[in-house]
Amino acid sequence: MSSWRDNLRYIEPYVPGEQPDLPDMVKLNTNENPYPPSPKVAQVIKDFDSGTLRLYPDPGSKVLADAIAKRYKIASNEVFTGVGSDDVLAIAFMTFFNSKKPILFPDITYSFYDVWAKLFCIPYKRPELDEAFKIKAEDYYCDNGGIVIANPNAPTGIRQDKSFLRDIIEHNRDVVVIIDEAYVDFCRESALPLAREYDNVLVVQTFSKSRSLAGMRIGYAMGNPELIKAMDDVRFSFNSYPMTRLSVAVGAAAMEDEEYFRETTRKVIDTREWTKRELNKLGFSFCDSETNFIFASHESVDAKYIFEKLKEKHIFVRYFNSPRIDNSLRISIGTQEDMKYFISELGKIV
Amino acid sequence: MSSWRDNLRYIEPYVPGEQPDLPDMVKLNTNENPYPPSPKVAQVIKDFDSGTLRLYPDPGSKVLADAIAKRYKIASNEVFTGVGSDDVLAIAFMTFFNSKKPILFPDITYSFYDVWAKLFCIPYKRPELDEAFKIKAEDYYCDNGGIVIANPNAPTGIRQDKSFLRDIIEHNRDVVVIIDEAYVDFCRESALPLAREYDNVLVVQTFSKSRSLAGMRIGYAMGNPELIKAMDDVRFSFNSYPMTRLSVAVGAAAMEDEEYFRETTRKVIDTREWTKRELNKLGFSFCDSETNFIFASHESVDAKYIFEKLKEKHIFVRYFNSPRIDNSLRISIGTQEDMKYFISELGKIV
Repeated sequence: MSSWRDNLRYIEPYVPGEQPDLPDMVKLNTNENPYPPSPKVAQVIKDFDSGTLRLYPDPGSKVLADAIAKRYKIASNEVFTGVGSDDVLAIAFMTFFNSKKPILFPDITYSFYDVWAKLFCIPYKRPELDEAFKIKAEDYYCDNGGIVIANPNAPTGIRQDKSFLRDIIEHNRDVVVIIDEAYVDFCRESALPLAREYDNVLVVQTFSKSRSLAGMRIGYAMGNPELIKAMDDVRFSFNSYPMTRLSVAVGAAAMEDEEYFRETTRKVIDTREWTKRELNKLGFSFCDSETNFIFASHESVDAKYIFEKLKEKHIFVRYFNSPRIDNSLRISIGTQEDMKYFISELGKIV
Repeated sequence: MSSWRDNLRYIEPYVPGEQPDLPDMVKLNTNENPYPPSPKVAQVIKDFDSGTLRLYPDPGSKVLADAIAKRYKIASNEVFTGVGSDDVLAIAFMTFFNSKKPILFPDITYSFYDVWAKLFCIPYKRPELDEAFKIKAEDYYCDNGGIVIANPNAPTGIRQDKSFLRDIIEHNRDVVVIIDEAYVDFCRESALPLAREYDNVLVVQTFSKSRSLAGMRIGYAMGNPELIKAMDDVRFSFNSYPMTRLSVAVGAAAMEDEEYFRETTRKVIDTREWTKRELNKLGFSFCDSETNFIFASHESVDAKYIFEKLKEKHIFVRYFNSPRIDNSLRISIGTQEDMKYFISELGKIV
């Protein structure tokens, strides 16, 4: 007999990273910013007129899109906003990847790309990174349905420079190339100029890392108005009002506080470089991260063992039980104090 | 030559209802609640520790799901939360409607159902409501891929009773039946007991209308844990953290303030009944609405003319330029004062 279960979309459930909540924990496992958001965010929330919540938000989140456009010196119709960059990327996959040809992204990269491909029944191939975890450009010269490059890449932290990306784009003018820049503010350069130069390039960024707003769910894409309009059409067919009134107000305030942004980003980078030196001393090796995390493995001690031992101390880092990366740990950068404690405990383990 | 445009998902853009923002307007066009949310919501926002926004939210929005479960005396794993009921319904369509057979919903109903069906390439049929805008149950006895019933229906405002719904469900035990109860708090009964009785019934509700939180984007579904788990699996494959930390806190506070909810809902219902009597006196006829709006047409004056004339006075109601309903206006219920002003201006027009 037939059952409603026959019509289910069966998905291998995605398991989000652990979100422990212990009073004394040092949480270095989900690449959150150790510093609170801009004081202007606190002020916006404090002053917020809750009475306005009875009304729907502006569908286009104009105040937020304008703040982003102003910061990046682009037009508001070159900006798409969504509920975190996951939402933005999911909408982009749905909008741009409707070819029968496979889309391409590296075998080691952000773990959501293949989840979205499966969800939306998009064929995909995952060219292998080389031994140094670098992308081989020639793997992306073949016929395909679209390309997604996280830059800097996760969980490796490695950044490819603009000329490298340009080469891949030049070979793929007939498909949309998405550059996922979740960690870009901790590195030297953004691919945004390429999105302005090429009409098939979309750059995706987020407020979750460098703007300390993971809890507010704000992501955005930048690209030519035609790409943005296509995403808007899909978005408005899914949910006309995705962003809460508070997200719009808070996001705009955070985007406008450039000084605070520069200060906290600088602190995270300084602590990252300090942590790299300390990890070296302890016998770790790692890619040259330009993000707010370091992806490191020890010369003799097993990653999973270190992960478990740290957990006992309520220090949480990320361990991936996946081929090729199962002897590395992804360590988010905390405050200088967090990292001093982390390094001292780590020293006792290795 | 091939172009990235060839791979676009072309969607006829959905046009959301007008969102005017004039200081002196009377906004009766998007079924918002005229009263602000609970004072407990204002308090939660005022007391909110913005520092916590640097952290991702709890993926399961447990605090919110628990508050909903407690209010409806069900288990938390019988509750799914999302970014407004549009998000919840979109995820439900994606999760449950993967048959080759068409899903069924009335020709006149919430205007997003066919938009989602098109977006997700779900075949659908739209049996016609009868002349009195009522659903004909026998239209839903045929083989199909799933059923969606808005109850009370929009934009008619008509509610079908539980025995009517039970009949449709009994004829469709092999597919998922979604009862969209966006307006249920303004009517006499919910289909929630049917969702508890039948494992294939999902009830969807929202904080946007009766809880005055359209701007906070909170919707939810209630059904057996297997349905909820299937939706969670799809959800977590789309976006692990859909709800902002503030949405979770605000939603829980609103759900817990039963007294305020009852008081504002009662006021809206009283004003609706008063408005019905006044509309009658002015020569309008309408379905017997059990929602926070009235769907009315005048005995002699054209709906579009009235719509335009009201707009000149900065009174906004909703006009649908669609077959069968293009001589009616959907009038959201405002405060008693709003509606007195509306009726007096309307009297001058007709």
